[in-house]
Amino acid sequence: MPGFTCGLDATLRVVAGKWKPLILYFLAQGGPTRYGELRRAVRDVSDKMLIQQLKELEADGLVKRTDYKEVPPRVDYSLTPLGRSLAQALVPLCNWGEANLVEVTRVFAQRAAEDQRRASRK
Amino acid sequence: MPGFTCGLDATLRVVAGKWKPLILYFLAQGGPTRYGELRRAVRDVSDKMLIQQLKELEADGLVKRTDYKEVPPRVDYSLTPLGRSLAQALVPLCNWGEANLVEVTRVFAQRAAEDQRRASRK
Repeated sequence: MPGFTCGLDATLRVVAGKWKPLILYFLAQGGPTRYGELRRAVRDVSDKMLIQQLKELEADGLVKRTDYKEVPPRVDYSLTPLGRSLAQALVPLCNWGEANLVEVTRVFAQRAAEDQRRASRK
Repeated sequence: MPGFTCGLDATLRVVAGKWKPLILYFLAQGGPTRYGELRRAVRDVSDKMLIQQLKELEADGLVKRTDYKEVPPRVDYSLTPLGRSLAQALVPLCNWGEANLVEVTRVFAQRAAEDQRRASRK
């Protein structure tokens, strides 16, 4: 597989970017989505970052941006067939997070406690 | 879901770290794995980075490190049940990358060409 260690490596390089998997996943939940809806769904992301990630997903052929050329502007985002197939492949990761939420919450509480211990030692 | 946008968000935070999904995936391919084998399987990673990621995966309860207390040292790594279930959830991403390798290769060629255009404009 030239340039990639394996299929997983190839996929991870496509969705590298903190918010891309979440964007794909949210776009898969419904039909074409207005920017504002996406912004509310993907919490904690800045406008600059969200717009950048959407541009890259569009350039990579995963997301389609439709500008209706209206005043006031109306623009929405949807998945291409390629983007839809990738979003589908993310579903088991979503299910894993939901099924193991108690464990995952424990992991993050432990990491936070460790960080605190490290900070108090300084 | 306190602290997480959704199950996918929770999972992504657990596997955040460029090499973690690949490490989990490779450990899932066989039984206990020696450090050197893992090092060869995960290409382009430095020892420092690989050891750090393995430590975090162990602290998070996804990977088990076994030190056989032998001389010369013999240490291997394997997945815990939690790590095994997460590796299982990564399989569709691996399959997606393999099934869409032509598209993915095109995406990266396009990105590289774009970077080159941008660099030559400077």
